[in-house]
Amino acid sequence: MIDCDVHNSWTSAEVLLDYLDPAFREYLDRGEIPGPRGAFPHAHRPWLHPEGFMRYDAVPPSGVTPGADLPFLAEQLLDRYSIDYAVLTGDESIEVSTLANPYYAQALASAYNDWMIENWLSADPRLRGSLIVAPQNPQLAAAEIRRLGDHPDIVQVLVSSGSQRPYGDPFFHPIWEACSEYDLPFAAHLGGQGGLNSTPIACGPTTFFWETHALLCETGMAHLGSTIAHGVFEKWPNARLILIECGVAWVPPVLWRLDEDFRALRKETPWLRRLPSEYARDHIRLTTQPLEVPNSPQALWPALADIGAQDMLMFASDYPHWDFDDPNFIRLPEDWREAVLDGNARSVYRLPAQEVVDELAG
Amino acid sequence: MIDCDVHNSWTSAEVLLDYLDPAFREYLDRGEIPGPRGAFPHAHRPWLHPEGFMRYDAVPPSGVTPGADLPFLAEQLLDRYSIDYAVLTGDESIEVSTLANPYYAQALASAYNDWMIENWLSADPRLRGSLIVAPQNPQLAAAEIRRLGDHPDIVQVLVSSGSQRPYGDPFFHPIWEACSEYDLPFAAHLGGQGGLNSTPIACGPTTFFWETHALLCETGMAHLGSTIAHGVFEKWPNARLILIECGVAWVPPVLWRLDEDFRALRKETPWLRRLPSEYARDHIRLTTQPLEVPNSPQALWPALADIGAQDMLMFASDYPHWDFDDPNFIRLPEDWREAVLDGNARSVYRLPAQEVVDELAG
Repeated sequence: MIDCDVHNSWTSAEVLLDYLDPAFREYLDRGEIPGPRGAFPHAHRPWLHPEGFMRYDAVPPSGVTPGADLPFLAEQLLDRYSIDYAVLTGDESIEVSTLANPYYAQALASAYNDWMIENWLSADPRLRGSLIVAPQNPQLAAAEIRRLGDHPDIVQVLVSSGSQRPYGDPFFHPIWEACSEYDLPFAAHLGGQGGLNSTPIACGPTTFFWETHALLCETGMAHLGSTIAHGVFEKWPNARLILIECGVAWVPPVLWRLDEDFRALRKETPWLRRLPSEYARDHIRLTTQPLEVPNSPQALWPALADIGAQDMLMFASDYPHWDFDDPNFIRLPEDWREAVLDGNARSVYRLPAQEVVDELAG
Repeated sequence: MIDCDVHNSWTSAEVLLDYLDPAFREYLDRGEIPGPRGAFPHAHRPWLHPEGFMRYDAVPPSGVTPGADLPFLAEQLLDRYSIDYAVLTGDESIEVSTLANPYYAQALASAYNDWMIENWLSADPRLRGSLIVAPQNPQLAAAEIRRLGDHPDIVQVLVSSGSQRPYGDPFFHPIWEACSEYDLPFAAHLGGQGGLNSTPIACGPTTFFWETHALLCETGMAHLGSTIAHGVFEKWPNARLILIECGVAWVPPVLWRLDEDFRALRKETPWLRRLPSEYARDHIRLTTQPLEVPNSPQALWPALADIGAQDMLMFASDYPHWDFDDPNFIRLPEDWREAVLDGNARSVYRLPAQEVVDELAG
């Protein structure tokens, strides 16, 4: 089994100091940070989670931040659920997308990447890493991909789903270009809902956290429509978009709408040769957490089957966050389980098949 | 059968001059209008429809604007499809929501309302009217509802789905209060995507019209979540929200998400006593056009049935617009047809039952 959204954390953002470009060390050491010493600099959402984001039981015995203690994470997640690979997505580090200064933002992301490679990827063979970039300066982000993109345990480039513009926009094409060169998927994880970024919900800010959290799936809609419409998957045939924690049940309705409108007005995007839903099936992947729960559980699947979601969904737990999905309780159609819990992620992340792993292990 | 979205138009916006508050006549007669003489003043979307919005065959023999010639509209729509009631939604008039000057915006809306009542509602017994208000000044909008809300053929208050904030926000409560006093539903129709209003799509502007049109369902999501979360349906038990032309297939996924997040964090909104999906079933209605078309047509219904959409959907044709839904070709589960084509609208708009009409007619 593969878990596509595991949040590794730090005990304090000051662990990044040694990895941070010296030109920016004073910013983090002496400069303004929103929070106490050791906080990570980013603009905050206007919505506050009234319970906090962490599972109460994920605090390690040492008392450090949930997700910051690898042996405890391994015991509570990897060992307990027999997870073959965990894709690390960091925690606050994708929030660099909210900062006005793109040089500082990318320096922070690069420090995270180096710290994560040195302290996590080498520490457990089950871990795989996300290269975090600051998308507000696509040229710098592309340079970061070229700096570290050939590390064998880096499996994707990661940004927040909150953004200034939808990610198919030509503004971001330097990032797609670099992803394609290194054959890395481009992943957007829920987050980045403040500061520099556009409102992640249509019609302006919502009010409550539960209302907001339910509607943040709209960020995924924007990126799904935009990457298809701008021809990202024609321009870079190996491009993959992974939407993490954006939900999945909304995808069929939005693809039906995109297909219908594209059929009527395809003259706007003559570079497209297939229906939006066909690009999605081949190039877009969705992590399951939080998997929607209808009143009648079976009501979830007919629409998803209609778009071929058995090839698109990938299991994620979101450990150690409050809305963790336990793989033992996740409901999936029986004949989708292998693909969703393992096969789809193995394929999109170019991970070796289980038989190859077994053979190498002797 | 009842058609819940019929766009009556004018031959030129200059027909409004006689109905416009004299303080604003020069604005329309001599002032800046974006377009030629006779255009209606409003801020424009950044997206341009590459085909225009009108059915080619809806131009009347007289050559005037589609929707501006009642006898032709009656022949092409009402008679042809045996429509009992047509709910008129105007055309550009909801775009007043995009104007910075709320006094001028409401004056234009009021002129439309008076013109529509005098020239349309009295001209055919099948027509019912929408009272258009400029939501950017809720106090003025409420006064307009109190001025005309007791007209027997006015069946709803109408605004654009593009807005500055989601419509459940307390800023808009004076409008809900007046709607409740007059027992009128509050309806939001796709539109108002420019000027004063927030971006109607998450993460900033999309690029192409087909991409945009598919994602404009997000405006409906914002209003659905917001009216439920702010307790509009607890505060005014007779309140109804009608989402017009926002699509329907996305509603179950969004309600599942809202239910799940509300269950986890209900302490944020202690005034709510039921699940979001329960408020929706009793208080929110959705017009069908444009009804989504899955690859496998039957994939549309299980999710909708899960939220009780047989009680929530109301047929609309969107005549004379480009994406008109022909009632002869609309696919509906057989046992939903009566409710969706007639009964649900009759109930929410307080229209007399067919037997009562027959009896009165002798």
